[in-house]
Amino acid sequence: MTDTDTESKVEAAEAAALELANVSDTDRRAALEAIATAIDDHREEVIAVNDEDVEAGEELLEAGEYTQALVDRLKLDDAKMDSIVEMVESVADQADPLGKTLQARHLDEDLDLYRVAVPIGVIGTVFESRPDALVQIAALALKSGNAVILKGGSEASHSNRELFEIIREAAQDVEAIPEGWVQLIEAREAVDTVLGMDEHIDLLMPRGSSAFVSYVQNNTQIPVLGHTEGVCHVYVDSEADLDEAVEVAFDAKVQYTAVCNAIETLLVHEDVAEEFLPTMADRYAEADVELRGDDRTREILADSGLDVLEATEEDWRTEYGDLILSIKVVDSLVDAIDHVNTNGSKHTESILTEDDAKARKFMTGVDAASVFHNASTRFADGYRYGLGAEVGISTGKIHARGPVGLEGLTTYKYYLEGDGHLVASYAGEDAIPFSHEDFDGQW
Amino acid sequence: MTDTDTESKVEAAEAAALELANVSDTDRRAALEAIATAIDDHREEVIAVNDEDVEAGEELLEAGEYTQALVDRLKLDDAKMDSIVEMVESVADQADPLGKTLQARHLDEDLDLYRVAVPIGVIGTVFESRPDALVQIAALALKSGNAVILKGGSEASHSNRELFEIIREAAQDVEAIPEGWVQLIEAREAVDTVLGMDEHIDLLMPRGSSAFVSYVQNNTQIPVLGHTEGVCHVYVDSEADLDEAVEVAFDAKVQYTAVCNAIETLLVHEDVAEEFLPTMADRYAEADVELRGDDRTREILADSGLDVLEATEEDWRTEYGDLILSIKVVDSLVDAIDHVNTNGSKHTESILTEDDAKARKFMTGVDAASVFHNASTRFADGYRYGLGAEVGISTGKIHARGPVGLEGLTTYKYYLEGDGHLVASYAGEDAIPFSHEDFDGQW
Repeated sequence: MTDTDTESKVEAAEAAALELANVSDTDRRAALEAIATAIDDHREEVIAVNDEDVEAGEELLEAGEYTQALVDRLKLDDAKMDSIVEMVESVADQADPLGKTLQARHLDEDLDLYRVAVPIGVIGTVFESRPDALVQIAALALKSGNAVILKGGSEASHSNRELFEIIREAAQDVEAIPEGWVQLIEAREAVDTVLGMDEHIDLLMPRGSSAFVSYVQNNTQIPVLGHTEGVCHVYVDSEADLDEAVEVAFDAKVQYTAVCNAIETLLVHEDVAEEFLPTMADRYAEADVELRGDDRTREILADSGLDVLEATEEDWRTEYGDLILSIKVVDSLVDAIDHVNTNGSKHTESILTEDDAKARKFMTGVDAASVFHNASTRFADGYRYGLGAEVGISTGKIHARGPVGLEGLTTYKYYLEGDGHLVASYAGEDAIPFSHEDFDGQW
Repeated sequence: MTDTDTESKVEAAEAAALELANVSDTDRRAALEAIATAIDDHREEVIAVNDEDVEAGEELLEAGEYTQALVDRLKLDDAKMDSIVEMVESVADQADPLGKTLQARHLDEDLDLYRVAVPIGVIGTVFESRPDALVQIAALALKSGNAVILKGGSEASHSNRELFEIIREAAQDVEAIPEGWVQLIEAREAVDTVLGMDEHIDLLMPRGSSAFVSYVQNNTQIPVLGHTEGVCHVYVDSEADLDEAVEVAFDAKVQYTAVCNAIETLLVHEDVAEEFLPTMADRYAEADVELRGDDRTREILADSGLDVLEATEEDWRTEYGDLILSIKVVDSLVDAIDHVNTNGSKHTESILTEDDAKARKFMTGVDAASVFHNASTRFADGYRYGLGAEVGISTGKIHARGPVGLEGLTTYKYYLEGDGHLVASYAGEDAIPFSHEDFDGQW
C-alpha cells in the first residue's frame, strides 16, 4: 500500500527546503518571534486541547497501562506554556548557524574556493509524548533553515495538532518563509513511509526509547543521528580526593536519575575501595539507591554491615534509568578503561583523580563522546556545554558527537569563484601550480 | 554460516583502533616513512607479482570480458611505483589531523570544556581494481589514526596481498603502532560479513561502480561515505562570455571524461542558444563528443547542418562517463536551477555568467556539494581544493561533503576538566550561572 498522503507531505517539505535554505536570518527570526507570540496568544486553546490528551492518559493510568510520570510530561499548564514561549524566543535569538564562510582559500589568481555553512535539507523527526518537544524541534529546524517532518507520540495527538497548526500559520506571517517547511504526520504507518523515503529526507533524528531508536536505525537508509543507550560510568581512582568523589558520584547518579547522562556503574580502584565504599554506600542510602556489587564490593560492604545484591554480567551493560547502581572494584586504571570500553555506550565517562597523567590516560583511552576529569557525567548536555538549544545527544561518531546544537543541523557547500578557469591549464607538462593559500574572507 | 576469519580480523582492528588513537604524529609519520621505504625497496617483487594479475587481466581482455583501460589501471610499472612511494611520503608530511583543540570554553571557574579532533575508529573500505588504491587508503587511515579493513578488487588480488604484507610489516618497525591496525579481506563473502558488523565498524567508504556503492548503502547499518553518481551540469547563462563558455564547457566534458566531476548535460539560456550552440558543437566535434539534444537544440543545430540525436528523459539522469553529452535549452535561470535540482546528483554544478547576482542565485539555489561560477566542474577534487590527499568525494550531506580529505576521517571528543563540580550546583533556585566564554587554549 502506498501512503500517498505522507509521500506528498515529504515532497512538499523537500520543495520548501530548497527555498528555506536562502531565507535570511532576519526572516527566520521574525517567523520564530511570530510563532512565540502566537503560542502565547493561543495558550488557552492549547491547554484546553491538551486536557483531552491528559484525560485519555489518566484513563490509561487508571487501567495501569501508563505511569504518573508520563501523564506529568504530557500535561501543559501556564508555567509550561511560559517556558515553551521562552524557548522559542531563545532559539530565535541564537546566532545564525547559516551562511558563515568556514574556510576561504585562493587556489590561483582569481580562483577562490569558499566553504560555507548551509542547512542539511529535510530532517525527519520522531519524538516522545511531550508536546513541548514538537515546538522545540520545529523551532530549531526553522532557525537552521531546514524543512522538518514531525511525528509525535499518539498520546499527545490533540496537543501536537493544535501546536503544529499554530506554528504553521504563524510562520506564514513572514512572506519569505515557504509553505510546506513544516509537516505533521500522525499515523503509525506513516513512520515506515518516512523511513523508506531516503531520496527525499537527508537526516533522521529519532528520540524516545532505545528499542524505538534501534528500530529506526535498522529500517532505513537515511542517516540517523541519536543515541539508543546511555551506559555511563564514574571511575574513582586510587589518587582520587575521596570526599569530593562521594559528592560527584552521588550527583552523577542521583541529581536526575532518568536521563541518559546519569551513571549506571561506579568503578573503584582496589587501593581505595575499603575506605571509599562504606561512606559512598551511606550517601547513596540517603536517596534509596539500590546497589548491586561484584564480589569485592559485596565483601567490603558486608564488613560494614551492608548486604548488597550480586551484579551479573547483564548489570554491567544495563541502562537502569532508575535508582539502581552497579559497583565494581578494579585492579588498575587500565582495568577501568577496559571495563568502560567493553561495557559502555560511548556516551559520557568520568575519572576522579588528583593525578593529571592518569586522568589524561583515561580520557584519551576511553572511547566516548564526552570524557570528564573530576566532574559529574550530568554535565554532558547542550545547555551546559553552551551550545544553546540541544537537538539531542549522539553516540555515533559521524557528523556530530555528544550533545548536538544548531551546528549539527548544518552541513557545508563549496563555492568556487573563477574567471573562465579550465582544469586543462593545471594538468600535463605545463601545468600551472596551485597556490592554496587560505585568506580571511566571506563569500 | 559465520565467517569467523573476517570477524576476528575486524575485532583485531577494533582493538588496535583504541591504541592507534593515541599514537603520536611522530610515530605515525615514522611508520608511513617506513612503509614508503619498504615499498621502494620491494618494488621488483611487487612488479613481478603484479604481472600475474596483469596476465590474468589480459586473458580476460582476449576473452572480451575486460577492457584495455581496466588492464592499464591494474598494471604497476616503475613509474607507477615511483608515484605510489611519493604519495605515501606526501601523506606522511601532511599536517596532523588529530589532537587539535577545535574549541575551548570556560563553563565556570575551573570547569573547562575542550572539543578535540580524534580518529573515527575502524574504517571499512572496498575499492576498485587499482593496487595503488590499497596503498593510498592504508596510508590515509594510518595518518588519521584509524584502523582499516581493506577489500580490493579480486583482479588485483596478488598485487594487493603483496602490498598489504609490505605495509603491515613495515609499520611494525615502529614500536608504537599496534599490530592489527590494517586488515586485508579477500573473499567476496567477507564483504557481507563486514556490512553486518555495525557494532565494530564506524564508517564504510566504498569506491567503485554506482551499482556496488548502492549495494553497500542498501545492505548495512554502518554509516557510508561516498557517492554513487556524478550527474554534473554546466549552465551557460544569457549573460555568459560565450568565448569563455565554449572553453569551459569543453574542459568540463572532455579534459577527463571518465571521472565523476565531468559534465553529462549542458544547459543553455534561450537568448544565447542560437549564437552559442553551433560554435560549441564544432568544438565538441574536435573531440568526437556525441551530442543528444532537446527539440530546440536539435532545431538550432539542424539549421547549421548538424544532425543531433534526441535526448530522452533518461538522458537527463544518466552519467555517461563517456564522450556523450546531452544539451537542453532553458527559458530562464530558474529553469536551469530546477533542471539541476530535479536531475542532478548533488555533486558539482557550474554557472557561466558575467552577472554576479545571477551567479549567486544559481549557487545558493542549486543543492550540490560544489557549485562554481565561471569555472570547470573538473576542479571538484581534493588535490585541486588543497585538501592534500583525497579520500573520496561525498554526495551525501552528513559528516563530510564534496571532496573529502584527512579531516573527513576524524571526529571529535569533548573533554571536560573540573575540580569536583556537581550539576546540582547549577540547578534549582540557587543555580550558579554558566559563564560560557570561549578562550584560546589547547587541551
